[in-house]
Amino acid sequence: MTGRRLKHWGWGYEDQAPTAAQLTEAAEGIRARFGFGGEVRAAVPLEEVEVRAPRLRRPDAFGDLFTDEKYERVSRTLGKAYRDIVRGFRGEFEYPPDLVALPRDCSEVETVLSWAEAEGAAVVPFGGGPSVGGGVEARLGDRPVVTMDLRRLDRLVEVDPTSLAARIEAGATGPRLEEQLREHGLTMRCFPQSFEYATLGGWIATRAGGHFATKETHVDDLVESVRAVTPRGTWESRRLPGSGAGPSPDRLLLGSEGILGTIVDAWVRVRPRPEWKAVATVSFQRFGDACEAVREIVQAGLDPANCRLLEAAEAELTGAGDGTSHLLLLAFESAHHPVDAPLRLALDAAESHGGTADEPRITEPAEAPVRSENSTLTGRKALNISANRPINMEAGGAAESWRGAFLLAPYLRDTFVSCGVLSETFETAITWDRLEDFHATVMETTRRAIAEVSGAPIEGRGAPLVTCRFTHAYPDGVAPYFTVLAPAIRGGEVEQWDEVKAAVSEALIEGGGTITHHHAVGRDHRPWYDRQRPAPFAAALRAAKVELDPGGILNPGVLLDP
Amino acid sequence: MTGRRLKHWGWGYEDQAPTAAQLTEAAEGIRARFGFGGEVRAAVPLEEVEVRAPRLRRPDAFGDLFTDEKYERVSRTLGKAYRDIVRGFRGEFEYPPDLVALPRDCSEVETVLSWAEAEGAAVVPFGGGPSVGGGVEARLGDRPVVTMDLRRLDRLVEVDPTSLAARIEAGATGPRLEEQLREHGLTMRCFPQSFEYATLGGWIATRAGGHFATKETHVDDLVESVRAVTPRGTWESRRLPGSGAGPSPDRLLLGSEGILGTIVDAWVRVRPRPEWKAVATVSFQRFGDACEAVREIVQAGLDPANCRLLEAAEAELTGAGDGTSHLLLLAFESAHHPVDAPLRLALDAAESHGGTADEPRITEPAEAPVRSENSTLTGRKALNISANRPINMEAGGAAESWRGAFLLAPYLRDTFVSCGVLSETFETAITWDRLEDFHATVMETTRRAIAEVSGAPIEGRGAPLVTCRFTHAYPDGVAPYFTVLAPAIRGGEVEQWDEVKAAVSEALIEGGGTITHHHAVGRDHRPWYDRQRPAPFAAALRAAKVELDPGGILNPGVLLDP
Repeated sequence: MTGRRLKHWGWGYEDQAPTAAQLTEAAEGIRARFGFGGEVRAAVPLEEVEVRAPRLRRPDAFGDLFTDEKYERVSRTLGKAYRDIVRGFRGEFEYPPDLVALPRDCSEVETVLSWAEAEGAAVVPFGGGPSVGGGVEARLGDRPVVTMDLRRLDRLVEVDPTSLAARIEAGATGPRLEEQLREHGLTMRCFPQSFEYATLGGWIATRAGGHFATKETHVDDLVESVRAVTPRGTWESRRLPGSGAGPSPDRLLLGSEGILGTIVDAWVRVRPRPEWKAVATVSFQRFGDACEAVREIVQAGLDPANCRLLEAAEAELTGAGDGTSHLLLLAFESAHHPVDAPLRLALDAAESHGGTADEPRITEPAEAPVRSENSTLTGRKALNISANRPINMEAGGAAESWRGAFLLAPYLRDTFVSCGVLSETFETAITWDRLEDFHATVMETTRRAIAEVSGAPIEGRGAPLVTCRFTHAYPDGVAPYFTVLAPAIRGGEVEQWDEVKAAVSEALIEGGGTITHHHAVGRDHRPWYDRQRPAPFAAALRAAKVELDPGGILNPGVLLDP
Repeated sequence: MTGRRLKHWGWGYEDQAPTAAQLTEAAEGIRARFGFGGEVRAAVPLEEVEVRAPRLRRPDAFGDLFTDEKYERVSRTLGKAYRDIVRGFRGEFEYPPDLVALPRDCSEVETVLSWAEAEGAAVVPFGGGPSVGGGVEARLGDRPVVTMDLRRLDRLVEVDPTSLAARIEAGATGPRLEEQLREHGLTMRCFPQSFEYATLGGWIATRAGGHFATKETHVDDLVESVRAVTPRGTWESRRLPGSGAGPSPDRLLLGSEGILGTIVDAWVRVRPRPEWKAVATVSFQRFGDACEAVREIVQAGLDPANCRLLEAAEAELTGAGDGTSHLLLLAFESAHHPVDAPLRLALDAAESHGGTADEPRITEPAEAPVRSENSTLTGRKALNISANRPINMEAGGAAESWRGAFLLAPYLRDTFVSCGVLSETFETAITWDRLEDFHATVMETTRRAIAEVSGAPIEGRGAPLVTCRFTHAYPDGVAPYFTVLAPAIRGGEVEQWDEVKAAVSEALIEGGGTITHHHAVGRDHRPWYDRQRPAPFAAALRAAKVELDPGGILNPGVLLDP
């Protein structure tokens, strides 16, 4: 518990909001760089937000387990997709939970579920709320809703240093769990972009993508066992390093987004903090060459910890490069032995495909991303939008610049919203054989759709920006991640983006990709998820849910119809 | 299709049976070495096997899709556990399928399922039949049974050399799929002990353990997408290198043992054949030191392809060592780059725990295990039971000797049955923190139970042999694998082993292990599997099955009650 409050809209803590003067400066910088963005507007303050009265009466019997306090209800209404941020900014909180529950342990989670079941209320699990697929927004019409906020369940319960595993409660955020593991000389090294606010339970429920760009890409691979509370009892798997006894119970909870049970804690695989690290950046003139380099590196089984390919425009946007070449960020790390040899092999592979590597940096390990305790984050830092470059490229090279920008990007989006800039991302995965056509089609579809919908030119000054990076790489394919920046249609931002999102999602699914590699399905990806998954699997999942949750109280509407 | 017929009982093809003279010689060798084993008896020949008349009439409408031929029915009745082999040997085939179906494609699989559903018959999928958990034996009383033998579905359908993936039909055996992949310079490298006879569909349905001792231990990690036929339609996942869209559909089919659908083909990840290999054997005087060495190697992320630890007695039994020390077999392999550096790191780790390494062998890659086309396999070759050592330890060292013995072991079991020797294995997985106590308890429980049940001494001449190896190693634990040899109680072998199996399984589950790491659940492991899995998961699985298979025709009795 930090004592600080999360913003009721937007990314981060309340004390991290930029001042009006900073926003004005940022808006000027954005306009100068992109040729779009309007006047700065201010978010509707919490006092002025109108929120419907709770339709559930807070029960007296359970102390402070439930609250109907306005801040709690408003701040737990929306996720953090662009369509959420912009609505929160405008003070539009259409589906606030009627109550927020704050359980302290497994038995209080059971209490919340049985109370809600008796009341006929839906229960929406809430970790840190960084969902970008509508996973935490209960669009349920007249049905009363309890949002179960797990932030009080944030302890490291047990450490097994011999097996390198730890039992951690579901509500622990990235910094909170890393801080507790650090006392034991251990780290989980699961660093999604949402690291600062997201929680272990949220990662498991959404199959979050973590630190590692290869091999252990999703949290799935770090999970040893999971404990979840269902309306039909506790679902707790054994701690096992591996098993072949029937389908994996954990793998059915992984990605279940709260529809089968509420995850209360998990045993996860941890590791000593890396002592050796070898990092380099490779520049490519041709994107296709860079793709071939990545393919060779992962198919060789070299398994770098970082293997992120930034298209030139993406590299420029994030301050990792100057936009003249595509950049491949490579890093190897180990707590056990030096890793310059595998880096050398990877660089040889990259150079054989026309890449130019900079001097490898063989260093002590970088720290885990640090909470931005008191910083004021306007976006200038991340976006290099003034002459002043606060991210020091000299200090650590492109990879470090990129990582800084990566963690600041969600803060920046709040600034964009204030300045009338649409800013959103989407991501997918595709096999290598389809990548070239798929990438071209998705880029083209996105560029056309966003320009058309925004009434902006397709290219030149004032054109929306669409950039791409590969976040994760596999022997059989990659996970491309796209960023879109465009002039927002003020007051119509949600419809504007929804139209683009639909066109893009259609291209992803038609092209053979997944609707999400690591952003989860929620409610926003449902139409395309429904087409992607095998119909008998959907039927099986529905039957499993009905069996465990006959009242249909568990996060209705995500993955399945409510 | 080879034209050769599998034995109607036992391991391998009909033409691989030893002669009476060879069996007599083997029996003498076994008695000389172990102090137990009786006179050689002969298996009941197929002509003398009495089998109940089919309770289903072969339909005329589908050509040769169904057969009621005696050999087909008898040879598809049992799996290959000791309790199966010994019953087959005695001519006891209590639950023969009434018909055997031999579909050629997906549409014929659909035909079989819908015909069986209309007839109220159960459908048991059959690959090569090496199940050791009662997975293919339809113990269903009066219910008619169709065994669906998938051997005609054995083609490599499509290769994607760019993504290193191939679509292969479910009935392709290990040699058959490797032979077809070899034409493309590729290999799947999934080499379970059952490699020669097991099929891709069987591996997926049972979560088979493959070639790799670390990292990609189960076939799970090699599967890119699966197609299965269910009574409610075709379940086909997308080819994706990774996805976070809901729980993984593939992971629910993996390990489903035929209860949700019949797997017809799958896209699997393949690779070029390894060009570089580095192999060494490390000897340890203390087993605990060897365990610590394995732990350091896997926790360091070195990920050797082979990392098998043989207890001294196991090493002696398989001819890999002389029984004076515990042996750790290490191998690294790559199709891309030399691998002596990681082997050196692993050997340094092993030596720091008191191990003595032999000279590393840096070689061209070994071939995939080869079908024993015309060999006659009596067991002498594998067990070193005479002065004559047909497995040449000089040629390739302990690892190669061990691998030869590994593949010959199942043949050998047929010989043991003929000679009145009980021979069986069981396996599990456990986290490192519990390993020492767990291993000691399981070994002790097994030794006592088998001696008591067999009326044999616990130690000394004539005592049953219980040995252990670790087949797979993980950062958080290992998979111990136990072998038992004892004097058989002739005519009472099944009850004898069942009693030991129950005591051992109790110890595995009580000690925190899994009832199976890679042998599947079937019908024989059910009581302990039922205790191991989370109750809500069992309920969810049951609901999913009922939804997809309302007639309950799909392999009733495995994983769930019929």
